[in-house]
Amino acid sequence: MKKIAVFVSGNGTNLQAIINAVSRGALKAQIALVVSDKKNAFALIRARRAGIKALFLDPKDYESRRAYDAALVRCLKAQKIDLVVLAGFMRILSPLFVQAFRNRILNIHPALLPAFPGECAIKDAFRHGVKVTGITVHFVDEEVDHGPIIAQESVNVLATDTAESLEEKIHRVEHRIYPEAIKKVLSGGFTLKGRRVLPVSRKS
Amino acid sequence: MKKIAVFVSGNGTNLQAIINAVSRGALKAQIALVVSDKKNAFALIRARRAGIKALFLDPKDYESRRAYDAALVRCLKAQKIDLVVLAGFMRILSPLFVQAFRNRILNIHPALLPAFPGECAIKDAFRHGVKVTGITVHFVDEEVDHGPIIAQESVNVLATDTAESLEEKIHRVEHRIYPEAIKKVLSGGFTLKGRRVLPVSRKS
Repeated sequence: MKKIAVFVSGNGTNLQAIINAVSRGALKAQIALVVSDKKNAFALIRARRAGIKALFLDPKDYESRRAYDAALVRCLKAQKIDLVVLAGFMRILSPLFVQAFRNRILNIHPALLPAFPGECAIKDAFRHGVKVTGITVHFVDEEVDHGPIIAQESVNVLATDTAESLEEKIHRVEHRIYPEAIKKVLSGGFTLKGRRVLPVSRKS
Repeated sequence: MKKIAVFVSGNGTNLQAIINAVSRGALKAQIALVVSDKKNAFALIRARRAGIKALFLDPKDYESRRAYDAALVRCLKAQKIDLVVLAGFMRILSPLFVQAFRNRILNIHPALLPAFPGECAIKDAFRHGVKVTGITVHFVDEEVDHGPIIAQESVNVLATDTAESLEEKIHRVEHRIYPEAIKKVLSGGFTLKGRRVLPVSRKS
């Protein structure tokens, strides 16, 4: 059984979706660890409720981002973690961390990257007046919201939508596609061709 | 009957889609004029075959972009053109032109703007490894590939797709949605709220 660690900073609705997918057998993996950089993240409570080891690692206890990330890496290696899943984790990971888990860190972003990177993706897309936005699951590389794309799904923006109703629709899709994307990556059935994430069976 | 002018530089497949939509009654408008900045654009032949006035306006005959665009404006005003439709027109229009036809110039772009602006949108999206791309119809403003978005439609990129098969799928959607978007704009039933193009009937 592959072991995953989920990194959180807040409410943890994507964590909950992953917990649910595991408990109903849709995702065959063990959530071995949940790590938060915020003490009061509700996600920690969700993890403990589900019987998952939940760790608050305080950035203030470390003298640099590098030192914090080195502690994260030690912790994950000790637990033999196969895959790191970012689920609303609000810290940027340093190259040290990215290199230690190259192509084994996933992030979900509430827009069709490369459109609308950054922290306000849904509002930015809404204000830009797009008629189609969506969700991206991607590998994390050294640049923010940038790595190879594992999955995307579009969401139409209707004239009747508000930024809030759009946010709701997007989160609903997130909760469905993130466990699916994790499953796909854990199955190992993909290869990278440039930036393209392709099934290994593909001849070309 | 509203009068439209279509600007072209090349093969003119979007022009053909518009001609077809008019001739089968799906788009109630008169294509009063087709203008090309390239002498050998096949689109000019398509226009003449359909009995539409087709004009080659040579940039070399004008001392500046502004002078060329001023000639375009005079020509369109003389013909009482209501709407300018760019269909593979490879010149950037100057502020002089944009201001003369503010919110009355449409462009189609083969990506989900603001992602992948520029001339190689389909290839750029393919190489970036997106799983979802699409088509954008937008008003033309002073910035390239930037104005308020009238319509967007998503196109999934499959593992089996090549840049060529993707291009084909995108063009097929273009030919369907461009006449629809032109119809929507000619109906006048929209309003701008910031960058958002919304139906006028909407209360908010």
